[in-house]
Amino acid sequence: MNVFLKDDITEELKLLINNVQLVIFDFDGVFTDNRVYVSEDGIESVSCWRSDGLGLSKLKGLGLPIWVISTEINKVVSARCKKLQIDCIQGCDDKLVAVIKLVKQFDCSLDEVLYMGNDVNDIDCLQSVGLPVVVQDAYPEVVNLAKFKTQRAGGFGAVREICDLIYEFKK
Amino acid sequence: MNVFLKDDITEELKLLINNVQLVIFDFDGVFTDNRVYVSEDGIESVSCWRSDGLGLSKLKGLGLPIWVISTEINKVVSARCKKLQIDCIQGCDDKLVAVIKLVKQFDCSLDEVLYMGNDVNDIDCLQSVGLPVVVQDAYPEVVNLAKFKTQRAGGFGAVREICDLIYEFKK
Amino acid sequence: MNVFLKDDITEELKLLINNVQLVIFDFDGVFTDNRVYVSEDGIESVSCWRSDGLGLSKLKGLGLPIWVISTEINKVVSARCKKLQIDCIQGCDDKLVAVIKLVKQFDCSLDEVLYMGNDVNDIDCLQSVGLPVVVQDAYPEVVNLAKFKTQRAGGFGAVREICDLIYEFKK
Amino acid sequence: MNVFLKDDITEELKLLINNVQLVIFDFDGVFTDNRVYVSEDGIESVSCWRSDGLGLSKLKGLGLPIWVISTEINKVVSARCKKLQIDCIQGCDDKLVAVIKLVKQFDCSLDEVLYMGNDVNDIDCLQSVGLPVVVQDAYPEVVNLAKFKTQRAGGFGAVREICDLIYEFKK
Repeated sequence: MNVFLKDDITEELKLLINNVQLVIFDFDGVFTDNRVYVSEDGIESVSCWRSDGLGLSKLKGLGLPIWVISTEINKVVSARCKKLQIDCIQGCDDKLVAVIKLVKQFDCSLDEVLYMGNDVNDIDCLQSVGLPVVVQDAYPEVVNLAKFKTQRAGGFGAVREICDLIYEFKK
Repeated sequence: MNVFLKDDITEELKLLINNVQLVIFDFDGVFTDNRVYVSEDGIESVSCWRSDGLGLSKLKGLGLPIWVISTEINKVVSARCKKLQIDCIQGCDDKLVAVIKLVKQFDCSLDEVLYMGNDVNDIDCLQSVGLPVVVQDAYPEVVNLAKFKTQRAGGFGAVREICDLIYEFKK
Repeated sequence: MNVFLKDDITEELKLLINNVQLVIFDFDGVFTDNRVYVSEDGIESVSCWRSDGLGLSKLKGLGLPIWVISTEINKVVSARCKKLQIDCIQGCDDKLVAVIKLVKQFDCSLDEVLYMGNDVNDIDCLQSVGLPVVVQDAYPEVVNLAKFKTQRAGGFGAVREICDLIYEFKK
Repeated sequence: MNVFLKDDITEELKLLINNVQLVIFDFDGVFTDNRVYVSEDGIESVSCWRSDGLGLSKLKGLGLPIWVISTEINKVVSARCKKLQIDCIQGCDDKLVAVIKLVKQFDCSLDEVLYMGNDVNDIDCLQSVGLPVVVQDAYPEVVNLAKFKTQRAGGFGAVREICDLIYEFKK
């Protein structure tokens, strides 16, 4: 989806997009709307965007590695990532450490990483990567750290939007 | 419900509506708001509009065949269609192939099909049928392909609205 | 809650409220936002407003009988009504028949009934009772039949609002 | 998150914040958006804000006792509080009695309590404590009792916002 207008994409952003070799997402607030549904039995659910899958498929078609990093260990993250057939790292107190590990694993540099987050626990990662992205409804503290803010909110197609954007320029 | 004003319905649209012999819906984003709720156990849920049932009942009263076509195979689609007592085809990589099969089965032409969708994987179908319809919150890429856009969003009464519209002119 | 301003309540409405001897609610779209959550297993859930209970308690304190009438037979209606400790009648093809039965049971007249609905299957009841009420987001076809439209939408406090209104004038 | 502007915080409010020795929250409408999801099986769920946890962690780091008080006894409250590792008192007909008990337990005064609520059953507590707080979407009857109203609604980060505010001035 082109909610972004191609003309709005600066030359600097195009360059950053073309450089991307590794795509890393925060989970809550990015794949979800940051809400968690809690049942009497203590079972948690989250709400995601069905069409995020279409965008991720296109990215995978480009051969780009796609990872989800989540501070908490939560079965709901595993469940969603399994469905979307993407990898996830959970239970990492320091997300940047996890990002750096992935950078080594895929033999690229931090400059070639797109990291997408929404909250203060994404600050270190957003400050360290080449293409920091935040969702429309990100917390104010992190918005200024981003090179791109999606038009759609987390859990309402933000992932799909960024996938479409990368695909458009890297395909 | 007449959220549409009868005066707004062009003569061309009236003709297209009168021609309809087969009604086919996409599921996610049309019967639902395109969100999917994922639990820790990996169980998916979707949110639908209770009053869609009232509209579908009226259409069935006219003797029109009503089908749901979904790319994915998902028990949640079966569950909702069973409740609404409409048929569904799932797991079709190419939705247009499924539409053409139905056209043959019901011995009508593509011109006599109403197809309602919301996203890029509906493009082929929307381009091929006589009355392509999209929901209020459809992805921009498909809006221009439609002869009618509902006032209500998917999962918030879009199905009910289109059923009421057809019923109004075909009853 | 007084979202209504007392000055806005006409003398006619005050009279109608004072006359109320029996309070009858539709369920979907009144206690809920008209959405239904459907799981893979076909289990349905609805979303209600926690504070509706506070309003209903006050009404019960006045000794007014409170009933829910639902066309469909659905365990989710029973579950919510049980929690709120109010009675419900389900599976009535003709809601007006059910309303008339209750009128006889409580030895009052249709003029003394408050009926609250949101959709076309409430038309007969809304046209027959003394105080027809609709929710903020009721379907257009029924809005003109009402003597009062709540400021809050169904599932977002409409029930609480009407309870508070009645309590205010009948306490 | 600083949705509040520091300049907007009056000297009186700063003093009140600095005085806080005990933080007490209502649950429904504060940790949640006041909706309750009811399944066919009568199982209730509520929707919370994932990032409330980040704020509560910071407050706990300051050594402040944090409690949740709920009129109803509901397993969903226990489930959420357990996850957030905060204590809760449930089934208290009179919330103010529970607040006073906590004040004694923590050897502070009512003036040193922050109480956050959203509805009429919070009136007594809001009137009795030193720092009464309400959520953005609180019922009108309680808004005037508050010294601070959050910018965010209950279940959409109101808890996180107030935690950030206290932390900012007490750290």
